[in-house]
Amino acid sequence: MSLYQDLAQQTAKLIENGVLRTGDRLPSIRQACRSNDVSPITVTQAYQVLESRGLIEARPKSGYFVRGRLARSLPEPTPTRPLGESTTLAVSDFIFQILDSVRDPGIVPLGSSFPSPHLFPLDRLGRFLATAARQFDPLSTVTDLPPGNAELRRQIALRYLNQGALVSPNEIIVTSGAMEGLNLCLQAVTRPGDLIAVESPTFYAGLQASERLGLRVIEIPTHPRLGVDLDALDAALSRHPIKACLFMLNFANPTGSCVPDEHRQALLAILRRHEVPLIEDDVYAELHFGPPPLCSKAADSSGLVMHVSSFAKCLAPGYRLGWVAAGRYAEAIRRQKLATSLGTAVPIQIAVAEYLKYGAYDKHLRRLRQSLEAQLTSLINAVEIHFPPGTRLARPSGGYFLWLELPAGVDSLRLHQDALARGISIAPGPIFSAQREFGHYLRLNFGHPDTPVQQAALATLGQLIKAQC
Amino acid sequence: MSLYQDLAQQTAKLIENGVLRTGDRLPSIRQACRSNDVSPITVTQAYQVLESRGLIEARPKSGYFVRGRLARSLPEPTPTRPLGESTTLAVSDFIFQILDSVRDPGIVPLGSSFPSPHLFPLDRLGRFLATAARQFDPLSTVTDLPPGNAELRRQIALRYLNQGALVSPNEIIVTSGAMEGLNLCLQAVTRPGDLIAVESPTFYAGLQASERLGLRVIEIPTHPRLGVDLDALDAALSRHPIKACLFMLNFANPTGSCVPDEHRQALLAILRRHEVPLIEDDVYAELHFGPPPLCSKAADSSGLVMHVSSFAKCLAPGYRLGWVAAGRYAEAIRRQKLATSLGTAVPIQIAVAEYLKYGAYDKHLRRLRQSLEAQLTSLINAVEIHFPPGTRLARPSGGYFLWLELPAGVDSLRLHQDALARGISIAPGPIFSAQREFGHYLRLNFGHPDTPVQQAALATLGQLIKAQC
Repeated sequence: MSLYQDLAQQTAKLIENGVLRTGDRLPSIRQACRSNDVSPITVTQAYQVLESRGLIEARPKSGYFVRGRLARSLPEPTPTRPLGESTTLAVSDFIFQILDSVRDPGIVPLGSSFPSPHLFPLDRLGRFLATAARQFDPLSTVTDLPPGNAELRRQIALRYLNQGALVSPNEIIVTSGAMEGLNLCLQAVTRPGDLIAVESPTFYAGLQASERLGLRVIEIPTHPRLGVDLDALDAALSRHPIKACLFMLNFANPTGSCVPDEHRQALLAILRRHEVPLIEDDVYAELHFGPPPLCSKAADSSGLVMHVSSFAKCLAPGYRLGWVAAGRYAEAIRRQKLATSLGTAVPIQIAVAEYLKYGAYDKHLRRLRQSLEAQLTSLINAVEIHFPPGTRLARPSGGYFLWLELPAGVDSLRLHQDALARGISIAPGPIFSAQREFGHYLRLNFGHPDTPVQQAALATLGQLIKAQC
Repeated sequence: MSLYQDLAQQTAKLIENGVLRTGDRLPSIRQACRSNDVSPITVTQAYQVLESRGLIEARPKSGYFVRGRLARSLPEPTPTRPLGESTTLAVSDFIFQILDSVRDPGIVPLGSSFPSPHLFPLDRLGRFLATAARQFDPLSTVTDLPPGNAELRRQIALRYLNQGALVSPNEIIVTSGAMEGLNLCLQAVTRPGDLIAVESPTFYAGLQASERLGLRVIEIPTHPRLGVDLDALDAALSRHPIKACLFMLNFANPTGSCVPDEHRQALLAILRRHEVPLIEDDVYAELHFGPPPLCSKAADSSGLVMHVSSFAKCLAPGYRLGWVAAGRYAEAIRRQKLATSLGTAVPIQIAVAEYLKYGAYDKHLRRLRQSLEAQLTSLINAVEIHFPPGTRLARPSGGYFLWLELPAGVDSLRLHQDALARGISIAPGPIFSAQREFGHYLRLNFGHPDTPVQQAALATLGQLIKAQC
């Protein structure tokens, strides 16, 4: 970690511990230089990081001050306790109705699953795609069939290496986005009628894929900040013939929870003990606001982890390019891919490989994370101002989803209808549950720049919620 | 039809009927002008068409002569009679072993499923893709989600219109190639354990997809030139709870058969009577050497036809762009697509839409058809020269596959091994059957330009076959 990151983290801790409180003035840059024995640039960078994370604010001609941490005043949602044991799914139609209703680009996209496409370097990527398109080697139409373009798989393996994971390019299969990857993984390790474990709440696309494949699911309780409950998981694996776990460990959709590193190792040990594979949907991993979480592939010695990711959420929306680092299932996934969609568009594979090689990805990611973290702060502030008492939230440490527990009487499906009538989308809690639980929860998207329109939408939402209380 | 096409067709008929025989001299250009009341350019064009179809040859300073129609001397393969009734599938591993063994680009690709990538306007397409990449509207990452890019769907609908089919852009769902389209269709109308009807022999990818989805298949007998046996189909539909038919009516893989227009209407009537949907895998439709066959969508009043096609075989290999014109199943297919792979790469969709709009596609197709037809003639000539008596084939009227029945004792799996050891691939018959029938059949690819290397490979193949007789 560099000096300024060190200093930022120390200071953040002081704020977290209450040593520095709301309204406190931070040491001036000159003072901080002296007491930490660092340069003015280092202090300035550290304070900028803290500012973008919403922890401090600059007041003209006065210096830096600890910002109002109203978010702290909202309690976390309660850990979940899913109903019943295992469920045969019948949710797809219901979910599609909700999703279809919010696709109009004129609607304020608080319910969207996508971040703003304007956050991505589409121009620069476009130049790489243009070059790839012109230099396209006809033979690559055959050589880039699954597992996929060799240079792209090498670049992905290099990124794993930087996260401390030794992943061979040979176990990486390029896919048409992470959604295809998830489907391939499920098909590789299950048969219709099989049981899989998912989180409660969970990303609806996993429910839809499971329903499509005739699978049954068992929902594992989760903590709003720490993710899946390991004791409950262990018990479920002991009691039921679970064929795979489909989890999001990093900045889960919808809760934003992130499984702490030590829990993650314990989780992998449990799965090893039961010999059950983990299908990890990890599309938000790069969107961490703090230090990067431990990569499961770095902690997996068993080959049981199928790590599914994509460039859709952090680099190239619309390119539909993802991959699976499939461990012991690599050959099975490659064959599933061949029999499902044959291959992934070759010019797209080449363009992203060249972009990664060029080396601008990390710089883009740093900027993206800062934007998202600032947008999160704005969103939480607006929630605190406009939403009624009894609202609960856990501030996520990455991604772009905020999960809210509303006062118990609120019906988020009714809220969805009322908001839609006013040109605002939300993602109501029941679409994240096999049994349509979470009736008074909702997911908000902070992947879009804060605008007066969005602020007004949040005020409207607050009124609609209060009207239900 | 233009004047020269008229003249070419008349003359072809005279050859077919035996009015003009091998070695006969055709009327000189001057004579033909006079007797048909057309211009010399028209006659020259007509003779060029016939020459590229391998029917006549120019002899320097002597004129045009009817070419040796040795192919006529080879009898057609016998109509098929699949074993047993319905089959639970276990073919995927076997097929993958065969396919994996032939992916080395150093191998003479007579067993390949792909045409030569050099036959396609990849340069020009690349320029459209380059433009699409640079002008990419970030919002299209959302607006081009399934059903897909509006302009692309409009262009596809226009092509249907030119084939006499009124297909609304709203029933077209863009897919990542036809293979994905097939999978979506199967998933939309079947559940695991269901029974579907396929041709015998049939394209192995359909068998693999069916196995993956837990389906059982019933194989319907086919004629080597006229395709699926309608009486047998009708009987099977009466006796079995068949949920869908998965057929290739145009230049089927592997036989090259093409269902005549009147059979096609009868086929649709049978399906209407039984209320069973047709999943038509129609990726070779544009590769007709004669007049275009009747488009099923033009003859379908019931909405039971899911017409699956792609640009991979006739325009843009490696782009992985296909579609389904899904009739009454359009909404089901759109949702399957969303839950399977979310969307198809947006810049790819835009690039092909713009290429189609630009209007160069038909010109490219005319050239492509001529190349393929000339390559077919070379291949058949080589087969006649090198393969032993007892070899049977039916000259296909489109596509790029030639299906051969070898003398009864020949083992095409052994031939596959022997040929591979000599750097030559073939597609052995058993990969096209749920029960590994067609042990003495093989499929050859004529989608690659005739070269001395390929000629030598065919001579070697002939020797290997003779050694088994």
